[in-house]
Amino acid sequence: MADLRRVVLDVLKPHDPQLLEFTERLAAVGHVEAITTSLLEHDREVQNVEITIEGDALDYGAIEEAIDGLGGTVHSIDEVTYGTHVVEERRTRRDG
Amino acid sequence: MADLRRVVLDVLKPHDPQLLEFTERLAAVGHVEAITTSLLEHDREVQNVEITIEGDALDYGAIEEAIDGLGGTVHSIDEVTYGTHVVEERRTRRDG
Amino acid sequence: MADLRRVVLDVLKPHDPQLLEFTERLAAVGHVEAITTSLLEHDREVQNVEITIEGDALDYGAIEEAIDGLGGTVHSIDEVTYGTHVVEERRTRRDG
Amino acid sequence: MADLRRVVLDVLKPHDPQLLEFTERLAAVGHVEAITTSLLEHDREVQNVEITIEGDALDYGAIEEAIDGLGGTVHSIDEVTYGTHVVEERRTRRDG
Amino acid sequence: MADLRRVVLDVLKPHDPQLLEFTERLAAVGHVEAITTSLLEHDREVQNVEITIEGDALDYGAIEEAIDGLGGTVHSIDEVTYGTHVVEERRTRRDG
Amino acid sequence: MADLRRVVLDVLKPHDPQLLEFTERLAAVGHVEAITTSLLEHDREVQNVEITIEGDALDYGAIEEAIDGLGGTVHSIDEVTYGTHVVEERRTRRDG
Amino acid sequence: MADLRRVVLDVLKPHDPQLLEFTERLAAVGHVEAITTSLLEHDREVQNVEITIEGDALDYGAIEEAIDGLGGTVHSIDEVTYGTHVVEERRTRRDG
Repeated sequence: MADLRRVVLDVLKPHDPQLLEFTERLAAVGHVEAITTSLLEHDREVQNVEITIEGDALDYGAIEEAIDGLGGTVHSIDEVTYGTHVVEERRTRRDG
Repeated sequence: MADLRRVVLDVLKPHDPQLLEFTERLAAVGHVEAITTSLLEHDREVQNVEITIEGDALDYGAIEEAIDGLGGTVHSIDEVTYGTHVVEERRTRRDG
Repeated sequence: MADLRRVVLDVLKPHDPQLLEFTERLAAVGHVEAITTSLLEHDREVQNVEITIEGDALDYGAIEEAIDGLGGTVHSIDEVTYGTHVVEERRTRRDG
Repeated sequence: MADLRRVVLDVLKPHDPQLLEFTERLAAVGHVEAITTSLLEHDREVQNVEITIEGDALDYGAIEEAIDGLGGTVHSIDEVTYGTHVVEERRTRRDG
Repeated sequence: MADLRRVVLDVLKPHDPQLLEFTERLAAVGHVEAITTSLLEHDREVQNVEITIEGDALDYGAIEEAIDGLGGTVHSIDEVTYGTHVVEERRTRRDG
Repeated sequence: MADLRRVVLDVLKPHDPQLLEFTERLAAVGHVEAITTSLLEHDREVQNVEITIEGDALDYGAIEEAIDGLGGTVHSIDEVTYGTHVVEERRTRRDG
Repeated sequence: MADLRRVVLDVLKPHDPQLLEFTERLAAVGHVEAITTSLLEHDREVQNVEITIEGDALDYGAIEEAIDGLGGTVHSIDEVTYGTHVVEERRTRRDG
């Protein structure tokens, strides 16, 4: 089976815990090597963040569980990469 | 015969299986070294995704079969690369 | 005589053969090292594709013949490179 | 526990201390290896700056304390990175 | 005397000879190491092309003569580089 | 104490001394390794320039003093970097 | 004294001498290692060109003298770099 190397998630999270603690807790999930959380938008209730996670054989179930446990919800999975390396998609010619 | 090294597909897939499982199953097709699936758009029924696959001698028939088997359909083949390396097309001068 | 190293063609091709088979057959032409075909536009009759071909001493006559044989027509030759290396044209200052 | 490697903060600071002294004082916080402060906007009362901090195991609490001590307030945490390396998020395909 | 290393020309050429033969013949001019011709625009009579030529000590007179001999005319010399290396001009701050 | 490695200043200067002499004199300030001055705008009285200075342990006081001495005034300090290396800020996801 | 490493000039020159000869003559000025002249605009009388010159210890006086001698006039000095290396200015965050 190919390994999950990289996943990009669009997530809604409550203000608490803060971005830092939220990300630190996800970083502790097995096989996560590096994780960047970026704040896209926020209102009084929630923060809309994009989370990019890289690792050798990521366990998506455990990641999603950790997000739920922190009060967050995965709004959409925007990008996933399996295999020996991270494929660099390029804008195809039709994208102009 | 030259080998198929890289293919970029525009695919319509049902919400189930999820992007992860969908991509993981395609990653298991022979000769696939790395695969990235990106969510372009989605509505209640389907997800429109772009799949970029790289490998040494990709077997497109097997890839298309796997996509069908997962309930997906190839909307269009946007880019294919055969040969010893992946040709970097650059915007020609006419593209401005 | 200098060698043809790279050529970019704007080609109209019928839907059949598919982009894959079309590109695979061109990849078999002598001296072709790598070839990428990108779908630009399509309607019910034809596909407008951009083909970028690289090799050591490309034989354009043989390439054009292969395209004709597959039912395609070269709409225009957008870029050609001869010599020891591929010249990276940069946007000149007048292009802004 | 994974280490905090990089954090990007949107901060409101008074004109005094100046950008230089403000940044120099934050640079003295433990584990800070490099820090760049950029002026985004300013009016008569305050300066809106973006602070990018990199280090091996950054201590966010100490950083926030130092900012408060200099009369500044963290308006938002825009980006955090934990783990072995800084993940390069790329514009996902949905960003176009 | 410094050597001419690179020249970018805006040229009007007849449809015949084709871009390929036209470029191949210019590639044969002394000291030309690599040459790329890009089609900018064309109408029924002429093609407007941009030609980028690199070499060690290019002989512009011989290049212009070859262009004339092929029925082309140099519309303008857009860029020239002399010296030990090709200077990378960057957009100056005034260009924004 | 961390060292000032890089500073970007928005400066208003009189036409005299010229950009060259102005920059040459600032280059002579202690610890300045490299300095680039770019002309942003100018009218009959003054030139608005952006000055980017890099060095090992820049002495901002001495730099500001030299600017004053040449008739210039620091309009704003746009960016400062302290520490072991120059942090590359990237457009955060909120910048789009 | 720090050395002038790079200068970017906005110059108005007559059509004669041509861009080539004009640039070749400037390339002969002492300490000039590489020079690129780009045509920005032109009308019947003059050409507006941007000249980028790099060298170890450029002598601006001699360069300006050579330009005058060829019938050109320096319209503005857009960028100058002194010191041990060419500082790469980046768009500051305020530039967006």
